[in-house]
Amino acid sequence: MKRWNIAITGFGAIGKAVAQIIREREQHYRELYAADIRIVAVCGSRAGLIDHDGLPWGTDSALPLQPGVTGAGFIEGSHANVLIEAGPTNFETGGSGYTYIRQALSQGMHAISISKGALVFDYAGLADLAKANGVQLKISGATSAALPTIDLLQYNLAGCQVLEVEGILTATTNFVLSKMMDGMSFDDAVAEAKRLGIAEPDPRFDVEGWDTACKVNILANAGFGARLKLQDIPRDGIDQISPADIQRWKAEGVVPKLIGRIQNDGGNTKASVELKTYPLDHPFSQVTARMKAIRVNTDVMGEITAIGVTSPLATAAAALKDFEHLLMAAHR
Amino acid sequence: MKRWNIAITGFGAIGKAVAQIIREREQHYRELYAADIRIVAVCGSRAGLIDHDGLPWGTDSALPLQPGVTGAGFIEGSHANVLIEAGPTNFETGGSGYTYIRQALSQGMHAISISKGALVFDYAGLADLAKANGVQLKISGATSAALPTIDLLQYNLAGCQVLEVEGILTATTNFVLSKMMDGMSFDDAVAEAKRLGIAEPDPRFDVEGWDTACKVNILANAGFGARLKLQDIPRDGIDQISPADIQRWKAEGVVPKLIGRIQNDGGNTKASVELKTYPLDHPFSQVTARMKAIRVNTDVMGEITAIGVTSPLATAAAALKDFEHLLMAAHR
Repeated sequence: MKRWNIAITGFGAIGKAVAQIIREREQHYRELYAADIRIVAVCGSRAGLIDHDGLPWGTDSALPLQPGVTGAGFIEGSHANVLIEAGPTNFETGGSGYTYIRQALSQGMHAISISKGALVFDYAGLADLAKANGVQLKISGATSAALPTIDLLQYNLAGCQVLEVEGILTATTNFVLSKMMDGMSFDDAVAEAKRLGIAEPDPRFDVEGWDTACKVNILANAGFGARLKLQDIPRDGIDQISPADIQRWKAEGVVPKLIGRIQNDGGNTKASVELKTYPLDHPFSQVTARMKAIRVNTDVMGEITAIGVTSPLATAAAALKDFEHLLMAAHR
Repeated sequence: MKRWNIAITGFGAIGKAVAQIIREREQHYRELYAADIRIVAVCGSRAGLIDHDGLPWGTDSALPLQPGVTGAGFIEGSHANVLIEAGPTNFETGGSGYTYIRQALSQGMHAISISKGALVFDYAGLADLAKANGVQLKISGATSAALPTIDLLQYNLAGCQVLEVEGILTATTNFVLSKMMDGMSFDDAVAEAKRLGIAEPDPRFDVEGWDTACKVNILANAGFGARLKLQDIPRDGIDQISPADIQRWKAEGVVPKLIGRIQNDGGNTKASVELKTYPLDHPFSQVTARMKAIRVNTDVMGEITAIGVTSPLATAAAALKDFEHLLMAAHR
């Protein structure tokens, strides 16, 4: 039985869902990988808890978090093998997630990032650091979660040349566009998305296209070895759409989608965020509400499309898929 | 530089496509995996060729095949590390593919099967043999090729409980059904599918549902650890559909699909081949002509759908995706 110690930074809805699923899968990990999985450390922005034998979960999964057990020293003190970073995203500085991931990789811990900030800020630097330390940096949770994106590029299409990627990568924009095509105003659709917990309290990050831009930025750099910066990515939003646009699209029988796009032309990789329209019989036209999708065009496998849904639980499960791939590799 | 020797059994259109892609990717394998890949042996049913330094490809990719270099002794004589089996399918006896795969696994070679016969005949026996010999048995090419199916279950959804799988897994039946909904007769649609090289000269294997049954059989056994036999799988075909059925479906605004289905209820795994209809806004309804699709319902990741195309090149590329996963694991 091999012991794996896990630290979780960022302990909001997603971080808690990660912990919950890990605990539900304890037996699964033992049986499939002969692995004894313990969560030994969690922290939020102000408090945390470390117990090297495994955290003392209460009956309602509550933890006696201690103020100040966070930030500098937390990673080193955790004695963990794997960091799962689920904190808030800051793509201008990388935020605290960037510091945690750098510390973890430097100490020979694998890192699984759900938050996008650190990856947008410096994916290449983190990937180099992981390589130098012989550990893995995994990013499924940061790139559309349950929808296979980076997996699709790196695993399902292994060996193929990927020529183009197009994705509906942000649930909020897809939800709002769907509602607008059903006759709702932009403001009402955004309010509805907030009410349902799809949109953040400040929805600008999504509706201005930043969320999609972050995701194609990470996918281009991780999947194609590009070195794009966020400012290299031309970006449409959905906040400029007028009622006249909606009427015209309906009249033309097309469906608008905010798309993240990567074009790979012989090593020259470009990314963009574009408002595009699709005919009704295109698979993307059926991708409504909380769904996401990705379409990949390859040299020898033709076109592959994947469609998935979005939820905090699915995002947590995507990070734990990454974790399970570490277990698979170690158990082989 | 690690040397990998490959043997290919079955040297028709697919086997030749496999060889062609391997040769095109020589540089790719060297750069990514420090692997020197040589095809050292190929055989069809009557002739073959072995050269331990790598086969002497002519300028037009022709090979001087020698009569009798096939069958018993071929695998042992090949001194290969990996077998790629692309021969004809015989799901009643396993056919020659079964013998080749057994010999390969017994000798410590990895086996990648594109043909379904051996896997339908005895997947569990072959998987046990692979495990006992510390090698891998890979099956992407046998389970809908470019469409991720077994990958999806074992890799992209790692850790999830898969509750149900539904797939449009046979290109011929999907093509014929699509044409019938466009007004063509069954016979004309089958003739058209043959003319385009989608259907086999004897299309009964496809239109009676056997091809889909074989694929769900393999997926259920490989993906869920079931021990189903082909006769355990209730099976619809598309050869009994009447013009009245077509008219009724059109009037109802639904689309017919021949579906392979797996239901997984707490370790009890059932498989079936069913003729089902879907509303126009279901993703499956847009999956026409040569396309295939799979929809997987999970506990924590919700529903994932993948859509892909079919071609001999894509099938060969799927087997080489399997091969590349072996290289990835060895190179780690």
